[in-house]
Amino acid sequence: MRIEVIDRILSANEATATEVASLLRRTATLALNVLGSPGAGKTELLARTIGALEGRLRVAVIEGDVATTADAERLAVLGVPVVQIETANLPGVCHLNATMVREALGRLDLAATDLLLIENVGNLVCPAEFELGEWAKVTVLSVTEGEDKPLKYPGAFRGARVVVVSKMDLVPHLGVDLEALRRNLQTANPALETFELSARSGEGLEGWVEWLVRCHEAWRGAE
Amino acid sequence: MRIEVIDRILSANEATATEVASLLRRTATLALNVLGSPGAGKTELLARTIGALEGRLRVAVIEGDVATTADAERLAVLGVPVVQIETANLPGVCHLNATMVREALGRLDLAATDLLLIENVGNLVCPAEFELGEWAKVTVLSVTEGEDKPLKYPGAFRGARVVVVSKMDLVPHLGVDLEALRRNLQTANPALETFELSARSGEGLEGWVEWLVRCHEAWRGAE
Repeated sequence: MRIEVIDRILSANEATATEVASLLRRTATLALNVLGSPGAGKTELLARTIGALEGRLRVAVIEGDVATTADAERLAVLGVPVVQIETANLPGVCHLNATMVREALGRLDLAATDLLLIENVGNLVCPAEFELGEWAKVTVLSVTEGEDKPLKYPGAFRGARVVVVSKMDLVPHLGVDLEALRRNLQTANPALETFELSARSGEGLEGWVEWLVRCHEAWRGAE
Repeated sequence: MRIEVIDRILSANEATATEVASLLRRTATLALNVLGSPGAGKTELLARTIGALEGRLRVAVIEGDVATTADAERLAVLGVPVVQIETANLPGVCHLNATMVREALGRLDLAATDLLLIENVGNLVCPAEFELGEWAKVTVLSVTEGEDKPLKYPGAFRGARVVVVSKMDLVPHLGVDLEALRRNLQTANPALETFELSARSGEGLEGWVEWLVRCHEAWRGAE
C-alpha cells in the first residue's frame, strides 16, 4: 500500500517539476537545488556565493525550512529576493516539492533572475527523491560528517551533478580521511564534479563561483 | 489526500509501537531511540557507550541505515548483538518504524538485554515522527551543526527526553555560540536533560553513562 502511495506522490511531483523546468527555461533562469544535512553549511555557502556574484549574476533564493525564517532573513539582508517556504505545518514534509517551488516562483521576477538558488530542507535522504524542476542538484557535505556519507546516503550523491565539500578549514582538527571521502564520492557517482571549499575562510570559493558563471553562460547560449 | 495517508501511516505505526513497548516492558529491556543528523556522531557515541558499560549493563543494538552495513560491523566487533536494518529498498523510508523494530526484536535475546540502543537513520526530521516503542528518544546534536538547529528542527528536540551535544572537543575551532545553543535547547523543550560530551576525547562521557545506569535501575525498580 505504502509504496503505491509514494509512487503516486512521486509521479505527480515529477509532472509539476517538468512544468517548473519549462518556466525556468523560458526565462533563462538557471536553478540549483541545494541539499545536504542540517548544519552542512548550505546557508553560509549561499551567503558567500551571493556576495561573490554581485554585479555578475542576478541571484534569487527560495529558502526551505522545517521551522523559522532565520535563514531567509540572513540572506535577505544581502539584497537579493528571498522567498521562504516553511514546511512545519505539512506533516511528513521533510523536503521541498515541485508544487511548493511553483508557488514560490509566482513571488519572484524570473525575467530579472539569472540564477535561482533553492535551499532545500536540511536532510540528506528525502530531498534527493523529489525533483523541483532544477537544472542540477548540488549536494553540500561537510567534512565534519565523515568520509562514509556518500556510501551511506547514496541517493543524495547519485542524483547530484556537483558536490561541495564544505568546512575544509576544519580538516586539521578532525579525524576525517579526505582520500577516502574523495574515493567514496567517485564510487557513489563517477560523473560528480567536486569543489572543496571553506565558506568561512573563502578558500576554494572561487572555483565554485566561476563554475556557476560558466554554467549560466552555457545555459543562455543553449537557448 | 496526502495528509490523510500520512495520518493513517502514523496511527498504524503507533499501534505497533505500543506492542513493541509492552514486549520490552515484559523483558525489562530499556530501549532508547537515538536520532540525529548524518555525521552527528551517533555511532561513535554508541561505540564508546558500549565500551563504558561493559560488565554493568548487557547492551544490544538495532542499527538503522539507508545503505551499507558499515555501522553495524563497527559495533559488532565490540562483542554486542547487533541487528541491521537497511531501509534503502523501501522507497521514501528515511526513518525506522515500529514494524521494522518489531521484526528486529525477533533476532535478539531480550531476556539477556538490559539496554537496547536503536540507532535511527541519520535524519533530524522524519525519525522524530515515528514512535518505535522506545522508553525515550535521545537526540544527538553535533556542535558543528550550529546553535540554531533546535529551533529549525523542533520535532527532534520537542519529543526527546535527552539531548547529547556531541563533538565538544571541536568547540575551540568553530564559531558556535554555546550559550545560544543551550538557550535554544531550553526553548525547544524546557524538560530536556542535556549532556555535553566528546566521544573522541571521552570528556563528559561519564555523566551520560551514569545516567543510563540510573535509568535502567529505576526502570527495573518500577516493574
